[in-house]
Amino acid sequence: METERIAVLAHEKFPDRAKTALGVMRYGDQEVRAVLDRDRTGDRVRDHVSDLPDAPIVESFSDALAAADGNLDALYVGIAPIGGGFDESWRSDLETAIESGCDVVSGLHYFLNDDEKLAALAAEHGVDLVDVREPDDDLTVATGASGDVEADVLLTVGTDCSVGKMTASLEIVAAARERGIDAAFVPTGQTGIMIAGWGNPIDRVVSDFAAGAVEEMLVEADGDHDLLVVEGQGSIVHPAYSAVTCGILHGSMPDGLVLCHAAGREAVHGYESFSLPPIGEYVDRYEGLADPVRETAVVAGALNTRDIADDEAAADAVASFAEAADVPAADPVRDGADRIVEAAVDAGLGVDERSGEGDDE
Amino acid sequence: METERIAVLAHEKFPDRAKTALGVMRYGDQEVRAVLDRDRTGDRVRDHVSDLPDAPIVESFSDALAAADGNLDALYVGIAPIGGGFDESWRSDLETAIESGCDVVSGLHYFLNDDEKLAALAAEHGVDLVDVREPDDDLTVATGASGDVEADVLLTVGTDCSVGKMTASLEIVAAARERGIDAAFVPTGQTGIMIAGWGNPIDRVVSDFAAGAVEEMLVEADGDHDLLVVEGQGSIVHPAYSAVTCGILHGSMPDGLVLCHAAGREAVHGYESFSLPPIGEYVDRYEGLADPVRETAVVAGALNTRDIADDEAAADAVASFAEAADVPAADPVRDGADRIVEAAVDAGLGVDERSGEGDDE
Repeated sequence: METERIAVLAHEKFPDRAKTALGVMRYGDQEVRAVLDRDRTGDRVRDHVSDLPDAPIVESFSDALAAADGNLDALYVGIAPIGGGFDESWRSDLETAIESGCDVVSGLHYFLNDDEKLAALAAEHGVDLVDVREPDDDLTVATGASGDVEADVLLTVGTDCSVGKMTASLEIVAAARERGIDAAFVPTGQTGIMIAGWGNPIDRVVSDFAAGAVEEMLVEADGDHDLLVVEGQGSIVHPAYSAVTCGILHGSMPDGLVLCHAAGREAVHGYESFSLPPIGEYVDRYEGLADPVRETAVVAGALNTRDIADDEAAADAVASFAEAADVPAADPVRDGADRIVEAAVDAGLGVDERSGEGDDE
Repeated sequence: METERIAVLAHEKFPDRAKTALGVMRYGDQEVRAVLDRDRTGDRVRDHVSDLPDAPIVESFSDALAAADGNLDALYVGIAPIGGGFDESWRSDLETAIESGCDVVSGLHYFLNDDEKLAALAAEHGVDLVDVREPDDDLTVATGASGDVEADVLLTVGTDCSVGKMTASLEIVAAARERGIDAAFVPTGQTGIMIAGWGNPIDRVVSDFAAGAVEEMLVEADGDHDLLVVEGQGSIVHPAYSAVTCGILHGSMPDGLVLCHAAGREAVHGYESFSLPPIGEYVDRYEGLADPVRETAVVAGALNTRDIADDEAAADAVASFAEAADVPAADPVRDGADRIVEAAVDAGLGVDERSGEGDDE
């Protein structure tokens, strides 16, 4: 498959409030040729984020097309307003993209395919509107088939939502591949799906099919890889999102878990009257909840230390977290995920019994 | 509100494979004037089920209307084929009902409102097609508001799916009302919704909104009652349905739990390679999973002894179950739910602090 050449829409929000844009730029296989942000026109990506591939920041899709010498395949909507609605100020960019023969990829709750004007324009120009948050029609209940998947399955689980489970999963896949393990990322949320180019948005699947939609992905990916790293969602102590978490935990029947946490987080994000339990309890909670469906263990921890400026303080936080969870831990962004992959391999994951990863041969 | 006079469609399946029909007939406020079953035409309901209100069994909706002297308000679809599809052999009955000015109520996965012919006919005759399994459009994420509900909340939870959680919930409400407690049933599945005439089908709600859809019902019902009995779904050890269970557990923030089990069940129904954990473990599992969101306790047990013919053997099974769960227990159908309500009241539930239920006054 040829690399998709894309522009990313991030009006008024790049980079700090453009999580989807940053995720695609950091982890996606796509080649980002321009970023649309009308508040930062004339800047470059590197002016704001030093470790991303560079690209110009432009005012409109027309300017993006010019900056890319006319070579663009798609426009990605890289931001989401609260509630996931559509911002009418983006419409002209989407229309120009469609008229230029580009697909439009979106993770909004507002489905572009349900927008009659955009849908008609897309049909006229023969391009696709890809709503990654719209689940497939043919999803159904889990059958238990995840138990027969030959690849090892590693699932990231969290102490809360928004602690870095997607990032940890992607860094683990990258570190595993560096080590020679044939690893793949299994996305369960809209940003992950945009990055990977496939996947089921589990939070949008009817709750009866949540586990089944995870199972369907694992069965599809099995055979092609030795290690499948499933992106977790939410937390089993979350007052609103625990159903999603529980469906992914049982639907993936994981061989190992990576416990993800954000340093300093003490209460549920956005639900601050709910305190987080102690770290050590989470290990028992996740293993215990999984157990009747799949015996598994937390093999490593991933700590998001983004809010700690000082490297030494961050390292201390990682060490404390590792001690509390009683497993090896790392900040997968700051430290890389080698230590996490090492711990997973020590627990027997990602080792292809046929080729004998870890053997002397 | 006047009592709704209805006919119940149960072709070829009454009574043993007509779970929805039986639930509505046993627990609903509706007056059942006829049952449609073309295999049992001429029989009466009491010929098959001795403790239900009697009604004639007829071949078609026309015959039902005649049997009811023309006085019918609605036709309920009281059976569901595997997969929840629509059986074309029912179409003429539905059409006759609509043409007679009757609403049609259905819990099928197949939505009657999406059937162009039926929808057009209903519009022409000014009647409603009620698809109880179609969630409202305005459901959203939980906010934690269940924690502020003034009524006490009792949730039925299960060792497995299909163990009798809906029946237990309905019997508990009936027994509580007998005792003078202002109790209400909060339905979460299609049969419960048909019986109660309101409710959100949690298994069909997107997983992100599962807890929120329970919360929305509790907030709606609060103020009108002292005890809200929430119908549980599935089981937290179920490989396919645990997401639904977890969403209801956290979304309802229950003050007490009733553990429901079917005597003799040792493996997950339909997933027999998964063994059920010991009964005693479930108490810790449910209380532990609820705890970070809501401290709660299993206050009683409900054992379904339908498969035990002998009364003494059934009583022994209930006693063993009570001992294993370490709470008072009963078979709510065989014994009534008094013992369960008594245990809930002993735990402080359903006691209106203002009127002082249980006080001497």
